[in-house]
Amino acid sequence: MFEKHNPKIGARPGTLAIPPDSPFPKITVVQYDVESVDRREIEDVTELRSFRESDRVTWVDVQGLGDEATIREIGEIFDLHPVALENAVNVPQRAKTELYENHQLVIARTPIIEDDGLVRTPQVCFVLGKHYVLTFQERYFGFFDPVRERIQAGIGAIRLEGPDYLAYALIDAMIDRYYPVAQNLSDGLEELEDIVVENPHPDVLGRIHALRRQLVVLRRIGWPQREAVNAMLRERTPFIGDQEKVYLRDTYDHIAQIVELIDSAREMASDLADAYLSNVSHRTNEIMKMLTLMASIFIPLTFVAGIYGMNFENMPELRSRVGYFVVWGVMLVVAVGMTLYFRHRGWVGSIPPPEFKTDRSDEEGS
Amino acid sequence: MFEKHNPKIGARPGTLAIPPDSPFPKITVVQYDVESVDRREIEDVTELRSFRESDRVTWVDVQGLGDEATIREIGEIFDLHPVALENAVNVPQRAKTELYENHQLVIARTPIIEDDGLVRTPQVCFVLGKHYVLTFQERYFGFFDPVRERIQAGIGAIRLEGPDYLAYALIDAMIDRYYPVAQNLSDGLEELEDIVVENPHPDVLGRIHALRRQLVVLRRIGWPQREAVNAMLRERTPFIGDQEKVYLRDTYDHIAQIVELIDSAREMASDLADAYLSNVSHRTNEIMKMLTLMASIFIPLTFVAGIYGMNFENMPELRSRVGYFVVWGVMLVVAVGMTLYFRHRGWVGSIPPPEFKTDRSDEEGS
Amino acid sequence: MFEKHNPKIGARPGTLAIPPDSPFPKITVVQYDVESVDRREIEDVTELRSFRESDRVTWVDVQGLGDEATIREIGEIFDLHPVALENAVNVPQRAKTELYENHQLVIARTPIIEDDGLVRTPQVCFVLGKHYVLTFQERYFGFFDPVRERIQAGIGAIRLEGPDYLAYALIDAMIDRYYPVAQNLSDGLEELEDIVVENPHPDVLGRIHALRRQLVVLRRIGWPQREAVNAMLRERTPFIGDQEKVYLRDTYDHIAQIVELIDSAREMASDLADAYLSNVSHRTNEIMKMLTLMASIFIPLTFVAGIYGMNFENMPELRSRVGYFVVWGVMLVVAVGMTLYFRHRGWVGSIPPPEFKTDRSDEEGS
Amino acid sequence: MFEKHNPKIGARPGTLAIPPDSPFPKITVVQYDVESVDRREIEDVTELRSFRESDRVTWVDVQGLGDEATIREIGEIFDLHPVALENAVNVPQRAKTELYENHQLVIARTPIIEDDGLVRTPQVCFVLGKHYVLTFQERYFGFFDPVRERIQAGIGAIRLEGPDYLAYALIDAMIDRYYPVAQNLSDGLEELEDIVVENPHPDVLGRIHALRRQLVVLRRIGWPQREAVNAMLRERTPFIGDQEKVYLRDTYDHIAQIVELIDSAREMASDLADAYLSNVSHRTNEIMKMLTLMASIFIPLTFVAGIYGMNFENMPELRSRVGYFVVWGVMLVVAVGMTLYFRHRGWVGSIPPPEFKTDRSDEEGS
Amino acid sequence: MFEKHNPKIGARPGTLAIPPDSPFPKITVVQYDVESVDRREIEDVTELRSFRESDRVTWVDVQGLGDEATIREIGEIFDLHPVALENAVNVPQRAKTELYENHQLVIARTPIIEDDGLVRTPQVCFVLGKHYVLTFQERYFGFFDPVRERIQAGIGAIRLEGPDYLAYALIDAMIDRYYPVAQNLSDGLEELEDIVVENPHPDVLGRIHALRRQLVVLRRIGWPQREAVNAMLRERTPFIGDQEKVYLRDTYDHIAQIVELIDSAREMASDLADAYLSNVSHRTNEIMKMLTLMASIFIPLTFVAGIYGMNFENMPELRSRVGYFVVWGVMLVVAVGMTLYFRHRGWVGSIPPPEFKTDRSDEEGS
Repeated sequence: MFEKHNPKIGARPGTLAIPPDSPFPKITVVQYDVESVDRREIEDVTELRSFRESDRVTWVDVQGLGDEATIREIGEIFDLHPVALENAVNVPQRAKTELYENHQLVIARTPIIEDDGLVRTPQVCFVLGKHYVLTFQERYFGFFDPVRERIQAGIGAIRLEGPDYLAYALIDAMIDRYYPVAQNLSDGLEELEDIVVENPHPDVLGRIHALRRQLVVLRRIGWPQREAVNAMLRERTPFIGDQEKVYLRDTYDHIAQIVELIDSAREMASDLADAYLSNVSHRTNEIMKMLTLMASIFIPLTFVAGIYGMNFENMPELRSRVGYFVVWGVMLVVAVGMTLYFRHRGWVGSIPPPEFKTDRSDEEGS
Repeated sequence: MFEKHNPKIGARPGTLAIPPDSPFPKITVVQYDVESVDRREIEDVTELRSFRESDRVTWVDVQGLGDEATIREIGEIFDLHPVALENAVNVPQRAKTELYENHQLVIARTPIIEDDGLVRTPQVCFVLGKHYVLTFQERYFGFFDPVRERIQAGIGAIRLEGPDYLAYALIDAMIDRYYPVAQNLSDGLEELEDIVVENPHPDVLGRIHALRRQLVVLRRIGWPQREAVNAMLRERTPFIGDQEKVYLRDTYDHIAQIVELIDSAREMASDLADAYLSNVSHRTNEIMKMLTLMASIFIPLTFVAGIYGMNFENMPELRSRVGYFVVWGVMLVVAVGMTLYFRHRGWVGSIPPPEFKTDRSDEEGS
Repeated sequence: MFEKHNPKIGARPGTLAIPPDSPFPKITVVQYDVESVDRREIEDVTELRSFRESDRVTWVDVQGLGDEATIREIGEIFDLHPVALENAVNVPQRAKTELYENHQLVIARTPIIEDDGLVRTPQVCFVLGKHYVLTFQERYFGFFDPVRERIQAGIGAIRLEGPDYLAYALIDAMIDRYYPVAQNLSDGLEELEDIVVENPHPDVLGRIHALRRQLVVLRRIGWPQREAVNAMLRERTPFIGDQEKVYLRDTYDHIAQIVELIDSAREMASDLADAYLSNVSHRTNEIMKMLTLMASIFIPLTFVAGIYGMNFENMPELRSRVGYFVVWGVMLVVAVGMTLYFRHRGWVGSIPPPEFKTDRSDEEGS
Repeated sequence: MFEKHNPKIGARPGTLAIPPDSPFPKITVVQYDVESVDRREIEDVTELRSFRESDRVTWVDVQGLGDEATIREIGEIFDLHPVALENAVNVPQRAKTELYENHQLVIARTPIIEDDGLVRTPQVCFVLGKHYVLTFQERYFGFFDPVRERIQAGIGAIRLEGPDYLAYALIDAMIDRYYPVAQNLSDGLEELEDIVVENPHPDVLGRIHALRRQLVVLRRIGWPQREAVNAMLRERTPFIGDQEKVYLRDTYDHIAQIVELIDSAREMASDLADAYLSNVSHRTNEIMKMLTLMASIFIPLTFVAGIYGMNFENMPELRSRVGYFVVWGVMLVVAVGMTLYFRHRGWVGSIPPPEFKTDRSDEEGS
Repeated sequence: MFEKHNPKIGARPGTLAIPPDSPFPKITVVQYDVESVDRREIEDVTELRSFRESDRVTWVDVQGLGDEATIREIGEIFDLHPVALENAVNVPQRAKTELYENHQLVIARTPIIEDDGLVRTPQVCFVLGKHYVLTFQERYFGFFDPVRERIQAGIGAIRLEGPDYLAYALIDAMIDRYYPVAQNLSDGLEELEDIVVENPHPDVLGRIHALRRQLVVLRRIGWPQREAVNAMLRERTPFIGDQEKVYLRDTYDHIAQIVELIDSAREMASDLADAYLSNVSHRTNEIMKMLTLMASIFIPLTFVAGIYGMNFENMPELRSRVGYFVVWGVMLVVAVGMTLYFRHRGWVGSIPPPEFKTDRSDEEGS
């Protein structure tokens, strides 16, 4: 739960704490203006220098951080502040935005569901300069493929706008990734609700617990993300135009909506756990009543039988011809009496387990 | 619980994610000034162009979003910002207000009880321009019929005022819709309280759970609604006059009051669940006492009977003429002793279940 | 719990939603300056016009709202904004203050204990103009009698000051009403604490629940009241002088103190419920131990007796002269052994129920 | 819990609600400058007039409020605002600071442990003028004795500084009083932790409840105290110099630290209650297991014995020579089987009660 | 839990409340510029005077506070404000920053794990002047050794920058200390999760309780630390350059991240306690079912056996040749019937205990 790749304690600032298992950097440059698009895989990092000087919008995407020399070289070419460079590669960090003299840094984290069904929250660092956007990803993720295609195909406004629009498009693409994860957790919550209603299996609580854990994690990364986007909107920055802030406000609404949904889901998960526990307590109650019923009826009867099983020589009843039948009669009266008493107290007559109406449709936005 | 009609991940901004089941747009235009009112159902969307140019107050009501071409055409005629148009048709969204150069956007959601008894929270988008108000509704709702009638009949100030007053009247009409839903939930809460008092059926907890769910949903849409109305009041905007802000403050008070009522109701629902559970635990306790009483009295007696049911040849008591009667005496003493002890400990003598005074009237505003 | 007298949905703004059972308006005018006081019961509402024009401080007290024509006439005479007039008569509303061009509106609600022991939260609306104060009360309440007497008798500064001081005195009189209700709830809380200590009757929980309900209601009206008084202090208003704000700050402290007391009381009520439940769980535990003790001692003994109650022909022990007495010995050993084991485990020896020290005096301000 | 000495409802502002049991005022004046100190017990309140006119720092300490005429006379001599005077003597009030034209008022409350072991929260009112400090105490407290001695002896900077420094020194002396009370509650909490670990007596919960009550009270007085000191720092006031604000910031840190400690302690007390309850539930569980074990083993055995206690004439087993011994064998197998089954389920083998490590030292600041 | 070394109540401000067990001060001076580094252990405190006058960056590290004269001498040499000096040596205090005329004070506390496995939270005070940094530590800690080595070796920018950068480096080194402690608690939490899943030992709850205690402590020191760093960033101060604030923002992010992690961990610990309790309650339920099953099946059978163990002379069944076998048949039917009924109710068939999926990897930042 707590991060592990942090630089060594007491390390000097600017130390690059590259995650040990991060792959070798794969650098892709896309450079475009209204008229044309160039796309290049870079082998030798020094080639970036020529891209830097161009006035066209330049997007350098670094996937994998596994070579300190390369990273430092990029930092030098783009004149990155040492703290910015440190932030770019140290994972995990809080989502945030920092303004430096020559560039603005944005850290974003987004949840993804991996092949093994687990949720991970990889981090991407954006560096936004006058003519360029740098993105640093720890691994080879496909977050940005749709944006790359839009640039290539010239769909929408992206080719008409500057690097701030590009940065917006990339950040928006990351925040969009929250939706399927939230959807996934929501489906899980509804499934658990069905189980609590129909067949309250004891592992429901474990699953609610696991779901709440994921919601806690989601909220922990979502909340600073919201704050970071808000800071981008509020702060005066030379790197984001007012025109682009209109778009970013939309992104802000998305992440704010997600955080609200997560909070509602946490509350509902908590309620569901209570509902399950009360269901269990209802069953315990039912079992208690069964036990009490059996014991209370038969214990007196057994006592009566025990009485006449005694071997005293002088027990007048035993010699009576009708004694045996009278005893049976007494027993019947006791049994019926106890049952009636229990029915009077409302302890007999099985009550159906609680029903949970799941009018889920109330929440659809339709 | 989580939205589903969101645009595809990585879609470019400005994509219209029209809900797939939204009906074909039905466009109604109402144009009025102090003297006269014109009302037209529009078949061909290009007819709107002529309405646009008028200086009279123009209200274009679009019900149904099921045709992208129509929506885009409207966007073009009224010169809507692409993000505004996207916000207008993408559902569900948070209630909010956004200021663009030529118009102000307001998203509102309101709960309605449908014929099947379920609560839905449809969204309406308002676009407020210099001379016009556009409203986009996903379906054919009757929210605005009373306002349309007031315009037609010239009741009140509506014909004397500009489009901002119209927008206020429409938003106020939507927020009024919260009251019957809140009333409905309140009635449900009081009914549940009666049940907890009189006949604590186990499905009470399920119903409290369902009610809390609805309150969570209501709060989730109500809170941003409050913030949106507040933002309309606070922000400087050329589209809402100070005169109209006086009215909007009233609307703000309504939604603020509703949010406070929802919070109180949630707290009371939570208390009610605790009250029910303690009632159940009281009953379990009662059953336990019954069981303990029966077992504790009869188990020693049965033991005594068991003793004299043994078949030892040499058991002096068995031959005594009064042995049997002495045993009966001993048993009586034991039974009475145990009962007295239990009474002393306060375990005997059924205590009535907890009473819950429901002095509901304390909350009426009278 | 939710309001019911709200105007019909979609009603145009400015609609007067007069509570249906509100009595006919009884109008009392008090007009005074340093030298003299005039007091008149008004029959014909138009008489107010002459009072309006005076430069002396004029207080128009309207008790009962049951005649729309009268209310509208008053609104016209004092030139009230339509929204202000609507706010004045629509009940219930949140406590608030609104500034209009010619007057300031203040809504206050206060709890009162009625003859039937229930708490109600009536609303009073104050309209504060340059030379006058209007008060609208739904019913005939005696809130303002002490102030009226002070004006009559010329006690204190009231005759020397303007209408803002009068408004302050009236609002202060209303907020003073919180104290006896809070005192009443506090007494109830202490009484419940005694019951939990001495004789934890099961209806305690119901009473705690009812008390918490009242605290929730009290807080729901008290919190906006605090905010409203604070807004009167903070906002620049031509209707309240700096001199009077000194007094209002005192009123603010009162209502703030009350809200803090309510919050503490809610927390204590919640703690008390936990204390009661743990007391109950302690008792269940005691009963369980009794049952276990009885069962664990006698069940093995009964088994032994059962053994020698069998009718096998070949049971050597039965024929032994001392068999019976040996069995008794074995039984004694078992019984003593079990008892010792239980004592060793700490299950025997009744432990007194939890004591709750009620050092209430710690909270007195002395 | 709620205050009782408040002025009568509807009383005019400025009414002095002197606590009925407050003793007669004992007035001590200390007047000093760098060179000399004068200290006088004042019998006749009018003597104060001469002190008022001096330019030296004058501290008038009024202990006991039991004579309205005296109080009013002091108010007149020092030209106190009526609301200030009212605040000075009405107890209890929230800690606060109020700025008047000629003086600043500070209300402080502090917890003290009285001889009977109870905690009380007396109030002291400070009035800070250009050349003087007035202090009003309800009773004869020794809060200020150390400060008086420092003035007398000329220790530290106190004689070099103005009345604001004196006020700071007095307020600081009051806030220092929180520490021993907090220490006392902390010791109580640790003692309770030991009890929960070693011998979970049922009255632990009552003691935790009582402790939480005190913490609630402490927080209720501590929080406004913090706000009051903060307001003294933030607000522009002619009565407190920047030099003295440096000292006050220190006092602010003390009260802020205390409030944080109280919040932590409340959270820990709450956790401790949960720990105790889980300990109890563990014991109930243990007892249940004992009962189940005994019942499950002996009930079948007793049944078997019962079978062969029947008196049917035709029961072949009874006549077998080895029948009795075979039955013993069967019983042994059943008993061992049940025990093994229970051991397999983990129900046998007493588990030690939960241990609570009390690594208290982790919180020492060392 | 509450501090103990605070100055005596009523002590005059500026009193040095040196912790009684603090060792004798060990003073180390490091003085450096780009070109060279001097390092000296100071025996006689007056030697500091010469260092003071230098324009090079001077770092005076005081370890141990156990000699008041020395501390006072240092205060005089560096012209420290009395309150600053008091703050420097009084432990424990809240993390904070205070700006004085000639220097800025920063108090930081950090958790360390000591040899005995306990967590302590020692305090370090930084005084930041124009050319110097003073650090006061209560004991001999090794926090600053890495920084000292970096200065010595001239690694990184530290020799090029001023005393503000040095202060940043030192504070950053302290805040880095949070990570291993958080890691340690995180490991403990995961271990507890495994235990709850696999073998819910009753002492789990005690360990969760202890862990939560530590988290409460960690948060109590971490939150003011965050605020203190934030204040250093926000406040205008002549002692910290804008260049250094870029670095400090990074430190702020670290402490903010830690506080968020602590809050998540507290929430998870709380969830884990609930999960454990539900696990226990599941087991109690299982045991209850076992007991009920055994009792409900055998009690009726034993009753039947008891019937035919009675000694009535006239019991026709006893003489029947098949009576015994018929009774066996009846008993079998009853036993099978009860079992089937229980199976129908879902009470038979042991359900596996809840599983808690521990997909911890979801939280790794990878």
